[in-house]
Amino acid sequence: MRIGIVGYGNIGRGVESAVTAAPDMELAAVFTRRDPASVSTATGVPVLAFDAIAEMKDDIDVLIICGGSATDLPWMTPQLAGMCNVIDSFDTHARIPEHYANVDAAAKASGKIGIISCGWDPGYFSLARIYADAALPDGDSYTFWGRGVSQGHSDAIRRIDGVADARQYTVPVQEAVDKVRNNEHPVFTTREMHLRECYVVAEDGADRDAIEQAIKTMPNYFDEYDTTVTFVTQEELNRDHSGLPHGGSVIRSGCTGNDKEFNNTIEFKLDLDSNPFFTGSILTAAARAAYRMNAEGQSGARAMFDIPPAYLSTHDRDELLAHML
Amino acid sequence: MRIGIVGYGNIGRGVESAVTAAPDMELAAVFTRRDPASVSTATGVPVLAFDAIAEMKDDIDVLIICGGSATDLPWMTPQLAGMCNVIDSFDTHARIPEHYANVDAAAKASGKIGIISCGWDPGYFSLARIYADAALPDGDSYTFWGRGVSQGHSDAIRRIDGVADARQYTVPVQEAVDKVRNNEHPVFTTREMHLRECYVVAEDGADRDAIEQAIKTMPNYFDEYDTTVTFVTQEELNRDHSGLPHGGSVIRSGCTGNDKEFNNTIEFKLDLDSNPFFTGSILTAAARAAYRMNAEGQSGARAMFDIPPAYLSTHDRDELLAHML
Repeated sequence: MRIGIVGYGNIGRGVESAVTAAPDMELAAVFTRRDPASVSTATGVPVLAFDAIAEMKDDIDVLIICGGSATDLPWMTPQLAGMCNVIDSFDTHARIPEHYANVDAAAKASGKIGIISCGWDPGYFSLARIYADAALPDGDSYTFWGRGVSQGHSDAIRRIDGVADARQYTVPVQEAVDKVRNNEHPVFTTREMHLRECYVVAEDGADRDAIEQAIKTMPNYFDEYDTTVTFVTQEELNRDHSGLPHGGSVIRSGCTGNDKEFNNTIEFKLDLDSNPFFTGSILTAAARAAYRMNAEGQSGARAMFDIPPAYLSTHDRDELLAHML
Repeated sequence: MRIGIVGYGNIGRGVESAVTAAPDMELAAVFTRRDPASVSTATGVPVLAFDAIAEMKDDIDVLIICGGSATDLPWMTPQLAGMCNVIDSFDTHARIPEHYANVDAAAKASGKIGIISCGWDPGYFSLARIYADAALPDGDSYTFWGRGVSQGHSDAIRRIDGVADARQYTVPVQEAVDKVRNNEHPVFTTREMHLRECYVVAEDGADRDAIEQAIKTMPNYFDEYDTTVTFVTQEELNRDHSGLPHGGSVIRSGCTGNDKEFNNTIEFKLDLDSNPFFTGSILTAAARAAYRMNAEGQSGARAMFDIPPAYLSTHDRDELLAHML
């Protein structure tokens, strides 16, 4: 299986690591919209211009597209699905149906497979929600994120006047998690589920009180949360907050059928040292599935809930039956 | 979707509850090898003799077979797969490949689908192992069971001279779970992972020390575990230990690719008030998948890792894309 990576940011690096370790894959090239000469990869795999994809499409079995959901993936995934099997991690939940339809049209026309929204949320967390709902149809599902770095929130803080650098952690409220686990079926406000912890480097002479107020009152990002702001030096930020850990839980509690006597909880929990490397690893497993589905003659868009789990695995059927079932 | 239940024990009752609550299913009949007149169902659904299945096969879309893995399912699932789509919860791990082959041959001949080993282990725990392995290929997976009632171990205690009744709980060792969650990649002995708690009703005048010794030294069942034995009255056993709770965790910790820097853990955890009702609910969701796969023209044996998750769900594609992905 020859894999191409489109876009070489943090997720692209994660895919490179996962593809290199996969026994059934070969990394063919990284494609970039930057000057290819300016990009150097961890493995030394060739870096080519984005426009070279069209010429190389017959030498690539699956393209893993590591672009941003806001402006890259909406046009890039459909365009590339017109040439190759593709995978993306599109995560703008509200626009998923539209993105799916666009990828579906392009992939059906080319006879290829396009799997969208692979990663952990959307992705493995979506699967956890669907499996839990199927087993406990009469119940409530909750998704907690963190403790982990939100890059969008960190970026929002950096845009405030007087801020030199910042890192924001999303933190689930432990009491909220406990209530869900205890089958209390709580109804939460936004504030009751997650906290936001901010580590901020102020520019020399900046007004720290003003920065703190600007963060805590920022609409959508922080105003509905209990937010803490801690000022640190750039050295402290680099030393203590340079990683991109993340994780969280999908928890569903409920009943199995028409019998209300029995409470059950299902929890799927992730604790990740590197959010982008984990996302890259799931994208890589999904690439395996895309290759297999297309080899069977399937085409069109797919989501992770369309993939038989065995298609993600490096283990063959006999091994799955004998050792993993 | 017209569902038939074969066998009306605890799991059969769980399936009855789940099918009755499902918006897309109708419970057609319960089939039993006992005298049908001696079986009364919770919902009043008709109870028919096992041999009536052959006559009714065209009125049933999926048969959910709720028999025992030791002596029932090895012949029953292949025989019934020769007439109908079937689901079972075959859980003798060592004999799964052989059972799969037998069901596959019968289901291919009849043009039906037979999904084996549905439940939570094998079943949802198997899926957790496969998904976790696909995302963290360089790691170690651990399965902890409990705290929950093991019916096999409870039965083994009841066969000891002087024992009137008994209930055995399998309990994971918390320190072991913590070590796995902390990415320590431990190598455990059997004793280090699980404890066994036994609640025993002794017959009048029975030698309690002898009973305790017989339990703790019983080969395979207890000799490799730290086991506690507590004598209780029949009233106490009935009052405090009449349920069939169970649960457990599949935990995998490891790395995503060729980069050894990042540790990650994935945990899938169940906490169930009723083991048989939860198993019955998963069997019911699998019946939905069997019906859909067969309606597409598929036939033969399948395991849960062959089922696209969406096929288990009552929600349609648009709803899954818009709200659950």
